[in-house]
Amino acid sequence: MALMTGAQYIESLRKLNTRVYMFGEKIENWVDHPMIRPSINCVAMTYELAQDPQYEDLMTAKSHLTGEKINRFSNIHQSTEDLKNKVKMQRLLGQKTASCFQRCVGMDAFNAVYSTTFEIDEKYGTDYFERFKKFLIMVQNEDLVVDGAMTDPKGDRSRAPHAQDDPDLFLRVKEVREDGIVVRGAKCHQTGSINSHWHIVMPTIAMGEDDKDYAVCFACPSDAEGLFMVYGRQSCDTRKLEEGGGMDVGNPKFGGQEALVVFDDVFIPNEYVFMNGEYDFAGMLVERFAGFHRQSYGGCKVGVGDVVIGAAALAAEYNGVEKASAVKDKLIEMTHLNETLYSCGIACSAEGHPTKSGSYIIDLLLANVCKQNITRFPYEIVRLAEDIAGGLMVTMPSNVDFNSDLVVGREGETIGDFCHKFFVGNGKCDTMDRMKVFRFLENICLGAAAVGYRTESLHGAGSPQAQRIMIQRQGNIQGKKQLVKDIVGIEE
Amino acid sequence: MALMTGAQYIESLRKLNTRVYMFGEKIENWVDHPMIRPSINCVAMTYELAQDPQYEDLMTAKSHLTGEKINRFSNIHQSTEDLKNKVKMQRLLGQKTASCFQRCVGMDAFNAVYSTTFEIDEKYGTDYFERFKKFLIMVQNEDLVVDGAMTDPKGDRSRAPHAQDDPDLFLRVKEVREDGIVVRGAKCHQTGSINSHWHIVMPTIAMGEDDKDYAVCFACPSDAEGLFMVYGRQSCDTRKLEEGGGMDVGNPKFGGQEALVVFDDVFIPNEYVFMNGEYDFAGMLVERFAGFHRQSYGGCKVGVGDVVIGAAALAAEYNGVEKASAVKDKLIEMTHLNETLYSCGIACSAEGHPTKSGSYIIDLLLANVCKQNITRFPYEIVRLAEDIAGGLMVTMPSNVDFNSDLVVGREGETIGDFCHKFFVGNGKCDTMDRMKVFRFLENICLGAAAVGYRTESLHGAGSPQAQRIMIQRQGNIQGKKQLVKDIVGIEE
Amino acid sequence: MALMTGAQYIESLRKLNTRVYMFGEKIENWVDHPMIRPSINCVAMTYELAQDPQYEDLMTAKSHLTGEKINRFSNIHQSTEDLKNKVKMQRLLGQKTASCFQRCVGMDAFNAVYSTTFEIDEKYGTDYFERFKKFLIMVQNEDLVVDGAMTDPKGDRSRAPHAQDDPDLFLRVKEVREDGIVVRGAKCHQTGSINSHWHIVMPTIAMGEDDKDYAVCFACPSDAEGLFMVYGRQSCDTRKLEEGGGMDVGNPKFGGQEALVVFDDVFIPNEYVFMNGEYDFAGMLVERFAGFHRQSYGGCKVGVGDVVIGAAALAAEYNGVEKASAVKDKLIEMTHLNETLYSCGIACSAEGHPTKSGSYIIDLLLANVCKQNITRFPYEIVRLAEDIAGGLMVTMPSNVDFNSDLVVGREGETIGDFCHKFFVGNGKCDTMDRMKVFRFLENICLGAAAVGYRTESLHGAGSPQAQRIMIQRQGNIQGKKQLVKDIVGIEE
Amino acid sequence: MALMTGAQYIESLRKLNTRVYMFGEKIENWVDHPMIRPSINCVAMTYELAQDPQYEDLMTAKSHLTGEKINRFSNIHQSTEDLKNKVKMQRLLGQKTASCFQRCVGMDAFNAVYSTTFEIDEKYGTDYFERFKKFLIMVQNEDLVVDGAMTDPKGDRSRAPHAQDDPDLFLRVKEVREDGIVVRGAKCHQTGSINSHWHIVMPTIAMGEDDKDYAVCFACPSDAEGLFMVYGRQSCDTRKLEEGGGMDVGNPKFGGQEALVVFDDVFIPNEYVFMNGEYDFAGMLVERFAGFHRQSYGGCKVGVGDVVIGAAALAAEYNGVEKASAVKDKLIEMTHLNETLYSCGIACSAEGHPTKSGSYIIDLLLANVCKQNITRFPYEIVRLAEDIAGGLMVTMPSNVDFNSDLVVGREGETIGDFCHKFFVGNGKCDTMDRMKVFRFLENICLGAAAVGYRTESLHGAGSPQAQRIMIQRQGNIQGKKQLVKDIVGIEE
Repeated sequence: MALMTGAQYIESLRKLNTRVYMFGEKIENWVDHPMIRPSINCVAMTYELAQDPQYEDLMTAKSHLTGEKINRFSNIHQSTEDLKNKVKMQRLLGQKTASCFQRCVGMDAFNAVYSTTFEIDEKYGTDYFERFKKFLIMVQNEDLVVDGAMTDPKGDRSRAPHAQDDPDLFLRVKEVREDGIVVRGAKCHQTGSINSHWHIVMPTIAMGEDDKDYAVCFACPSDAEGLFMVYGRQSCDTRKLEEGGGMDVGNPKFGGQEALVVFDDVFIPNEYVFMNGEYDFAGMLVERFAGFHRQSYGGCKVGVGDVVIGAAALAAEYNGVEKASAVKDKLIEMTHLNETLYSCGIACSAEGHPTKSGSYIIDLLLANVCKQNITRFPYEIVRLAEDIAGGLMVTMPSNVDFNSDLVVGREGETIGDFCHKFFVGNGKCDTMDRMKVFRFLENICLGAAAVGYRTESLHGAGSPQAQRIMIQRQGNIQGKKQLVKDIVGIEE
Repeated sequence: MALMTGAQYIESLRKLNTRVYMFGEKIENWVDHPMIRPSINCVAMTYELAQDPQYEDLMTAKSHLTGEKINRFSNIHQSTEDLKNKVKMQRLLGQKTASCFQRCVGMDAFNAVYSTTFEIDEKYGTDYFERFKKFLIMVQNEDLVVDGAMTDPKGDRSRAPHAQDDPDLFLRVKEVREDGIVVRGAKCHQTGSINSHWHIVMPTIAMGEDDKDYAVCFACPSDAEGLFMVYGRQSCDTRKLEEGGGMDVGNPKFGGQEALVVFDDVFIPNEYVFMNGEYDFAGMLVERFAGFHRQSYGGCKVGVGDVVIGAAALAAEYNGVEKASAVKDKLIEMTHLNETLYSCGIACSAEGHPTKSGSYIIDLLLANVCKQNITRFPYEIVRLAEDIAGGLMVTMPSNVDFNSDLVVGREGETIGDFCHKFFVGNGKCDTMDRMKVFRFLENICLGAAAVGYRTESLHGAGSPQAQRIMIQRQGNIQGKKQLVKDIVGIEE
Repeated sequence: MALMTGAQYIESLRKLNTRVYMFGEKIENWVDHPMIRPSINCVAMTYELAQDPQYEDLMTAKSHLTGEKINRFSNIHQSTEDLKNKVKMQRLLGQKTASCFQRCVGMDAFNAVYSTTFEIDEKYGTDYFERFKKFLIMVQNEDLVVDGAMTDPKGDRSRAPHAQDDPDLFLRVKEVREDGIVVRGAKCHQTGSINSHWHIVMPTIAMGEDDKDYAVCFACPSDAEGLFMVYGRQSCDTRKLEEGGGMDVGNPKFGGQEALVVFDDVFIPNEYVFMNGEYDFAGMLVERFAGFHRQSYGGCKVGVGDVVIGAAALAAEYNGVEKASAVKDKLIEMTHLNETLYSCGIACSAEGHPTKSGSYIIDLLLANVCKQNITRFPYEIVRLAEDIAGGLMVTMPSNVDFNSDLVVGREGETIGDFCHKFFVGNGKCDTMDRMKVFRFLENICLGAAAVGYRTESLHGAGSPQAQRIMIQRQGNIQGKKQLVKDIVGIEE
Repeated sequence: MALMTGAQYIESLRKLNTRVYMFGEKIENWVDHPMIRPSINCVAMTYELAQDPQYEDLMTAKSHLTGEKINRFSNIHQSTEDLKNKVKMQRLLGQKTASCFQRCVGMDAFNAVYSTTFEIDEKYGTDYFERFKKFLIMVQNEDLVVDGAMTDPKGDRSRAPHAQDDPDLFLRVKEVREDGIVVRGAKCHQTGSINSHWHIVMPTIAMGEDDKDYAVCFACPSDAEGLFMVYGRQSCDTRKLEEGGGMDVGNPKFGGQEALVVFDDVFIPNEYVFMNGEYDFAGMLVERFAGFHRQSYGGCKVGVGDVVIGAAALAAEYNGVEKASAVKDKLIEMTHLNETLYSCGIACSAEGHPTKSGSYIIDLLLANVCKQNITRFPYEIVRLAEDIAGGLMVTMPSNVDFNSDLVVGREGETIGDFCHKFFVGNGKCDTMDRMKVFRFLENICLGAAAVGYRTESLHGAGSPQAQRIMIQRQGNIQGKKQLVKDIVGIEE
């Protein structure tokens, strides 16, 4: 089956009966809802670019299962080249959308589940690997978007899943039937859940035997019975609803999306169950998914960073200060930080290696190092962008004011006249273009896009401390001690 | 005359005919407008605390002109103790509002104009100093709020005021009459202009003879004929308009305010003109105002920082992770950074010295160092706060959802039920309290309050590069070279 | 009695029978030993400047005990002005020596012991305060240098003093006699022990009842029987012994000094014992001494920083790059960091308050914040200095080579000729002056002076973690939580 | 011909008549000179590991010219795999020596000259490429060490080579003969010049037509007539000469080396001349050499960093604090920074591409980003190591004291006894082992090895500003501006 176009993807969503709630109401036509649509446009871009011959090599791959051309987002990495191309594709999409484009979680889930089910089967004689391959072939053939769902509500963080007051605070198997399982619980801050066709659900932490019921991994359609989503608020979200808001939105077409996904006793047929009780593999699955997803940030956030740097440079040009040495130096620093992130994304890919299943996985230490830098540098890039742009991005009047013909001046000038008069820049640019760039930067620095570029950089794929624990584990401190013992001559 | 209460202050605003435009419309009752009122509440707090015996010493002073008790915001600093108390008062107000409380600009303008007019008169035999004292006595007696207005639109930043295509891009004297002057132009991103009774307008840069018409300083009522304001947008501003928005606003009572203030041929009687053509004093006035205002940030932003640290600590407690060593260490770092800022505010005050007029001024080098740190540390404090809080602050559903009784669950549960179920924290706190803290942090990190705590920290009182230039000038590099020559024995 | 001159001070040292060991040998004439003398010169500078009318106000004070003029290093702070002047005096001395001048530890010990003995007496009815005042009057009258000794060897850091395998790993009272006590143990990395006339010994940590024997504070002459010192090595120390070394030493006249001070059963008469078993006051004494000493670094290291900045600027001038914007910006950053440190030193002083004894103490939170910054910024200042200077400071030939007349060239040129030819700078400076500046920077960045400017900044007056614990304790997190509760409306 | 062993390499040096001066004297047996030998041992390690089957794959390659097995240091990179293996080999050698092992400059010169001569020939029809290949085959066959020499003295940095007062301040062709050229000038801070068999000399900056005589590249034996070296001083260099110094040296076997290399009218036969007057290729040669060398630092310094981390961890263990959360967190941070550097080294390799000559070159932007990070992170790693180690590393007595049997105690204890008594650590380690680790860290942080790990990281392969210029040039700011224009809809 051919790859979908962006338009086909959007149409395909309309066929879903996904239940979405926002502001206390059920949203019927969520596909065209102004607050949701920008996030759908981002995903659509993953389809559009795959159709573009210029990007085809990066955006598509050949399925190792079917030999067909597939969107790279459905690919199981077959080489370090594949791992690097994944990062490059993500940078490209970040450049085109300046947003989180949401399709990565599924890709990272595919690769984590693929290699882990292989090893579960090896130990337990189960057939999860075959089940999963079958599911994946469907995804590849139908060119579907699948969300990866990991983070549980967690409740009291000092207690294990089974030890919570409310047993539902981690998603769990409530009932095992002949033909499948019934699951209950929720997944929090799910990126891109609404515009996905399917979900893959995974556990969120390593588990012990007592947590057996929580060691569950499965796939289900986004409109499965009992499943619904409550849309999360973002900074400045309702600007998208404003009439005449125009440039105030910042990024007119693209955006991100997070939701609480509730599993209210959802039935999962056996063919879509990929782990059920094998608690000793929960840790591996989490670690691999997190590893892949930490790599991802070395691509997507770098692409967004490229646009932020461009916006800061454009603001400097429009402000007439692009040649000031301090401005140039700040742009260099932003570029330096952004390319350092990219280097980390590339390095953990280039140093990848095959898993037992044959698929390739990133270098775990370097992927965690990558993400740790992501929790820092975008914040500094944003600070430098705000520095270069100047204060107007947070004090300028509304788009409506710029367009207002209400007369307020002694000589008949309108509000719009005054806005245009006083917010002129270097004299060569259109004042509205200058304003658009400021609003874009406001959006990235403290608007809706800041959710993706800042907070998600901090907490997505695991909070900073999670990476530090992995760095400690993978850092081989004992080996390093031996190095110095050898050099200074310490024998014990 | 007695000091006003907060309520009296708010009533006093109703008597003004200040013209305010927002979203293309004239706002008639701006005092009660939900988007404007929080910033008025902040200023009201400067009156309320002055009435509170607990804070009286900090909040009031004895006028050196009349001997009466006055609000410290109208005080001319008579000692380094006064300078330090100014900073402490600002920290207190930051703690009480978690916002910019807007009354500092006027105070800093008073002190800059006071000492500068004394020196203009000394050179030119003018009587600006007496005029200004008379004006100030009125302000002190009537306990007025006065905004200090400095930043012009500037147009092409590489050109001087007189060399702009549009002569109005810097505010200027358009006409000199017997009894006063007519001024035209605008001041950008004016903090607290709408809720001020009067404005003091100052030039924004050092000037040459060609810019003589632009070297003007004066006071005028906020509702002077020809004067009007266009309200600036802030991140998440319209949440304040939402019905049922509740906690989504983040800071339910307080906020900041910026506007474009247009002077559309405003007549200023001579008694309120404090500089008119003495272009060689424009630089001194700017430098002193900026110096005082850079000191200010070592108080107000520290107070806000205290609340941010408290909010992060509370979030950690509600999340059940307050005892984790990584969390404790981050809170220490936030405290360390915040107190470093405070140290800078105190140090430039303690090292102040008298001006020729007898009033005290801060140490200019240290005040610039203070502000330079302010352009950095709040950003890191915010990053650490986001780190501790976790991602929920940007992904949680709306307040309406938490209160919704729309039934969505198999067992009759409402949206609100599910929100409460899944966003429970350590089990000891009220879930809504937890959510309030997240929304407060969202507001400070990327909502309306981020405008004050982040961008204003960067650009208010001059962008980072402005401080660097001052640090270079005041750093006495030649003297430092001599130190090393003396030590290593270099004679030239 | 009059204050001593520098020369008199040096002569006074010759009368001491202080036992000093270095490289396995007893050093008889340590006063003139080339490795020790630079540190003596530093202390001498504290006498010389006190005689200089230009610095008299800063360098001397009026004794609150005798009314006589005394060196400020023997002063008990009577006001916040005194506390600020202490910091300014230290900055001055740092500027004159580019070294640790070693006399601060005693001054800080005086002030800690003075206020603490007052409170011990208050609780226990002892007469330590009177004893100490008597001792201090002698110090003031005779203008003596007294070293403060705190850091014990500590052994296994996870165990208390009494629980160590070897009871001597913390200094202790071995025997109590009628007329005094016998003490045993050692103090590590003692700065300025050899060139001090007396020592004040203090405990190094808060203690419990089991550590009673370790809760001891006393004074003793540096040449007491049973007391001796083992000199510590510094980077590049033996360059001071080289014939023809000349500029290779870096700082030709000044330097620091550390030693292990061993108390091999030293008898202390009762009149010099200021604490003996009052273990519940050990913590207060440590905290106060550390507090004062953390303040000190906000003066002395800033003075050294001034010379480092000067040296970097001079190197840039000699290299011909002083006008490059990148160089100027780095000098600004160095200045900014250095003045931030100074601000912290001033702020904790200006915010000082009286102790029960009437003497003034710094603000503890801000003093710890001050020191915490000292553990960071000098490292960055050094890095920037190395950046500006260029690599020659670590690759240039020896002074001997520059002066060598060994012929090596085809046309009869000597090694010296080639060195002068190829290491010429901007063409305007003497090549040897350029080399001197490089050697000075090498000395500060990685030579003997780096011990004082870098490692001592890190560990002196307590390692970074010690300050973080104090910042946590003093940071009033509960109060900060209340601030946010008040604002968002949380009642519990 | 077979690869040399380490011992054979050292013997091969004895056959050279290299002229070396130090402290004003000619060093006859420089191979065994205690100050020089450690740097020879480092190079010997590049031979030893190539013989070790465990490291053979990394340390050797197959010559693309002869098909023979060669040391990788003589390899022309044939793939990105080769580029990555180069970095891994360098990390390994850094781990084994904790030093600069000096053989990289030649390798980087080979690759830069190889690809550049190909392109010169292409344009000018010269035969430099063939000449160079012939030379390289000799190097590969005889397994020689070749130094790459680039940095000229430069004199007044604001003037071009031809515009200097002294024409020799950049190395130049003084005379062209039928059979070769005569060159004059010098190269500064040459790493590893003395222990190299040959040198490749390159220009140090891009040049114009007036600088034609300076656009020269050639190879010459290290003991060519007219060539000599003046050894550069390093911090603590003479500790290596001390009798009984022992552990005070820090790194007992390995070290670095820098020298001034003087070309006092040296004749170069035509077959070794690879550029002569093609000034328009000087920039390419410099840029490529610098690019390769900036990549190198992402390997070698990472290896040294591994040993520093190990030493800090070992010091923590011996101090008994390895389980403190603050210590663990610092080790994580050191690891994180070090692996970020490695990621940069790997990424610029993995993103390499073929030159016209067919050989592979790194990604220039990422290589410059790599080096820019190297100018920062080792400084922070060092600071953290000093933090963990504690102050003893700069205050402990000499090795002689630890071994001294001079009796100084009341009970017959020697200096050595006291040193061992008081510097005991956690009770489980040998005190001397603890001391060795401290001395190792002293050496890296502020001793001889700090020259390599710190200053060389800053200035080697170009000072920080050089990388920033390249990052600016390669950063494609215009393309980034277009990205934001596309997103916000700006058409011009």
